Amino acid sequence: MQERVNVKVKELRNFSKKVLIRKGLTQEDAEITADVLIKADQRGIESHGVARLERYVSGIDDGLILTNPEIKTIKETPVSLVVDGGGGMGQPLTYRTMERCLEKARKSFMCFASIRNSNHYGIAGYYTLMALEHDMIGFSSTNSAPLVVPTFANDAVIGTNPISIGVPAKDKYPFLLDMATSTVPRGKLEVYARAEKNIPHKWATDEKGDPATNPAQVLDNLINRKGGGLSPLGGSHEITGGHKGYGLSVLVDILSGIFSNGTVGRDIYGKEGEPAEVCHFIGAINPAAFTGLENIQKNMDYYIDMLKNTQKVEGQDRIYIAGEKEFEAYQKNLTNLSLQKKVFDNLNAIGSKFSLYLNEST
Amino acid sequence: MQERVNVKVKELRNFSKKVLIRKGLTQEDAEITADVLIKADQRGIESHGVARLERYVSGIDDGLILTNPEIKTIKETPVSLVVDGGGGMGQPLTYRTMERCLEKARKSFMCFASIRNSNHYGIAGYYTLMALEHDMIGFSSTNSAPLVVPTFANDAVIGTNPISIGVPAKDKYPFLLDMATSTVPRGKLEVYARAEKNIPHKWATDEKGDPATNPAQVLDNLINRKGGGLSPLGGSHEITGGHKGYGLSVLVDILSGIFSNGTVGRDIYGKEGEPAEVCHFIGAINPAAFTGLENIQKNMDYYIDMLKNTQKVEGQDRIYIAGEKEFEAYQKNLTNLSLQKKVFDNLNAIGSKFSLYLNEST
Repeated sequence: MQERVNVKVKELRNFSKKVLIRKGLTQEDAEITADVLIKADQRGIESHGVARLERYVSGIDDGLILTNPEIKTIKETPVSLVVDGGGGMGQPLTYRTMERCLEKARKSFMCFASIRNSNHYGIAGYYTLMALEHDMIGFSSTNSAPLVVPTFANDAVIGTNPISIGVPAKDKYPFLLDMATSTVPRGKLEVYARAEKNIPHKWATDEKGDPATNPAQVLDNLINRKGGGLSPLGGSHEITGGHKGYGLSVLVDILSGIFSNGTVGRDIYGKEGEPAEVCHFIGAINPAAFTGLENIQKNMDYYIDMLKNTQKVEGQDRIYIAGEKEFEAYQKNLTNLSLQKKVFDNLNAIGSKFSLYLNEST
Repeated sequence: MQERVNVKVKELRNFSKKVLIRKGLTQEDAEITADVLIKADQRGIESHGVARLERYVSGIDDGLILTNPEIKTIKETPVSLVVDGGGGMGQPLTYRTMERCLEKARKSFMCFASIRNSNHYGIAGYYTLMALEHDMIGFSSTNSAPLVVPTFANDAVIGTNPISIGVPAKDKYPFLLDMATSTVPRGKLEVYARAEKNIPHKWATDEKGDPATNPAQVLDNLINRKGGGLSPLGGSHEITGGHKGYGLSVLVDILSGIFSNGTVGRDIYGKEGEPAEVCHFIGAINPAAFTGLENIQKNMDYYIDMLKNTQKVEGQDRIYIAGEKEFEAYQKNLTNLSLQKKVFDNLNAIGSKFSLYLNEST
């Protein structure tokens, strides 16, 4: 069991924000970025929470993430945007672009934005949640570092490229799918590597293209591009549908990197010491484009009941809807969060350079 | 090896069209439906080709598919449609709705349509191809008979609900993803059952929720709802990402059945002897909404080259792009098709009632 430390969400937010401001972000950019990170922790997605602050700080230090980027609107129609992020932080850029999408969707029923020249934007679901908070249907996806091996290939040239879609319900939690298009994200291998456990089949292939069992070896192979890597959703073979996960990953690259005239595949984080050029694709649909919010919410509640009342398999007493576990975690973590001690220590190490300290809550 | 019979595409088209006209379809509806079926065969997707004609004919005979449906537009905006199909054939309804989407996308940059009260619409990719033929980005999905078991459930309450997306390239074949959101569609189990072969893990679960090996048993369990069924993409467990395929299947139900105020989950084909009430969700995006056709095509060619030039795994000499195999099959089958003899015989049995005969080509 990993040692853990309790912190107050309010204090963690304040601390993270101040660190980001000291690193050069505006007050508002820092607030948005801190919120994206903390919401990930609150929703139980620790891999994308405040543990990431360190990477952003080094990205800024290395000049790979700009704190004062020149953001340009390349194309604008009543239902679409193409935005160049100018190499800045992914979170404030995507947050503001989603706000523009929501505004357009109010007037024009829907809006999708393809965003280029950005950086890691946190959990895909954050921006979908923004849409849900405005009773809109949300879409969010991003390309990412090449870690996934296409079907029949032996080199990781596509990303874990997550897709998130949110649809409002009435008395139930909304449907909120937020899934990497690989079987698992890299973080899962890191967890197994730390625990010195073998990984299950379908997660990754080794340097020969065979199913990998040793997570540390896969991670090393990826870093040194020795061959193999993460498998698409469905595994590394056509027989179990791996070509579908591969297709979905490519789709995300197309929406985000191709539509924006940006960057795709192995070109993401493609050059050592140069900006990552991550691309996103987000959007909002006004329920009024179809049968309206009330109808959709009512139908969602009916459907969610149908799914949850399905006969369970032996040993299971509950069927989940996409996002449900995360909504429950969020309720639990509204005011207090438990962090891994090493994350807590690391935050204090970062903060100490600016005489900022995060306290354990009692 | 199954016995096969060669036929001329032109003759098969003429024959299928005439059968459908005799069953009460208008000349144009019959032409569209025949084209959807034959294009599936030409693209190598025999499960959705003219072998399906029999089911449509019995659907019409049983009064479950109407040949003269009252089609209503429930909602219309510059970028969206909700259409009630009135219980008619899925193909002409979806074809015409896609034509309306394309027209709207020309003027308003994009259009999505949620369609209810329809029937089986053939291959999802047909409608995506329509968009591609007009240099548009296409989307097509449909819900379907409940054959797939949600994660932690032991009853098949969601469909194999395919998703298809097409994006134009320049000198390459377009990207055309067309995938069931289950690991495999039912047809695969039927093929294995006929060959008396065991099915691979991840395809299906048995009545106890364990990985199924006997395809005939799974098919029987599904018909008699004894428990188990097809597994979502990613398999029947969370550890291999099965909850993601489950989420994607639910997404298709939401887009098609919830947005249209239609039918979802186990309610599709829900009542013996009543219309299936299948729902679809289709759409078109004008490349001008983003960086324009020329840019997108050029970027697609670059990306396709990148993927295809990735190092291959041992034993493989080629990496495929979604849809590529089907485009190649189509080129091969432009004027002649090889049908399974039993499909050929079956077509002639249907035709003989109207003195219509399909000849073997020499």
